[in-house]
Amino acid sequence: MKVTVHVQRRPDIADPQGTAVARALRDLGHDTVETVRINRTVELEIRGTDPAAIEAEVQTMCERLLANPVMEDFEVVVHR
Amino acid sequence: MKVTVHVQRRPDIADPQGTAVARALRDLGHDTVETVRINRTVELEIRGTDPAAIEAEVQTMCERLLANPVMEDFEVVVHR
Repeated sequence: MKVTVHVQRRPDIADPQGTAVARALRDLGHDTVETVRINRTVELEIRGTDPAAIEAEVQTMCERLLANPVMEDFEVVVHR
Repeated sequence: MKVTVHVQRRPDIADPQGTAVARALRDLGHDTVETVRINRTVELEIRGTDPAAIEAEVQTMCERLLANPVMEDFEVVVHR
């Protein structure tokens, strides 16, 4: 079963990579760029047939490894 | 105007980071994990009111800086 996890820094946490990309884009002449934030999406293929059980397991994976609970929020989407 | 760019490696290009995460998840006991791929999402705030012009400009930003055209595909979504 396919599962997508969207991971993003909390809005109040600075994103230095996004800030650097915004500056680089402006340096290239794209001066309408106001802000850039860079997030990640983890696409998993999980063996199993029970969407609720898979969602719970991926939630645990996020807490243990896929996201940094101090700085990041995450959302788990199971594609049924 | 908010713009989201989804960047992902082409399916035929290996994703070593995803492979390492899959192995780490299995080592933690999540043995239903088959594959993991890690993509990125760039969230931009662009000054302007013309969605078509903004989409064209962000397309150019992707080709110049936000994506690696050799290895990655990208999709630009303008939130109207």
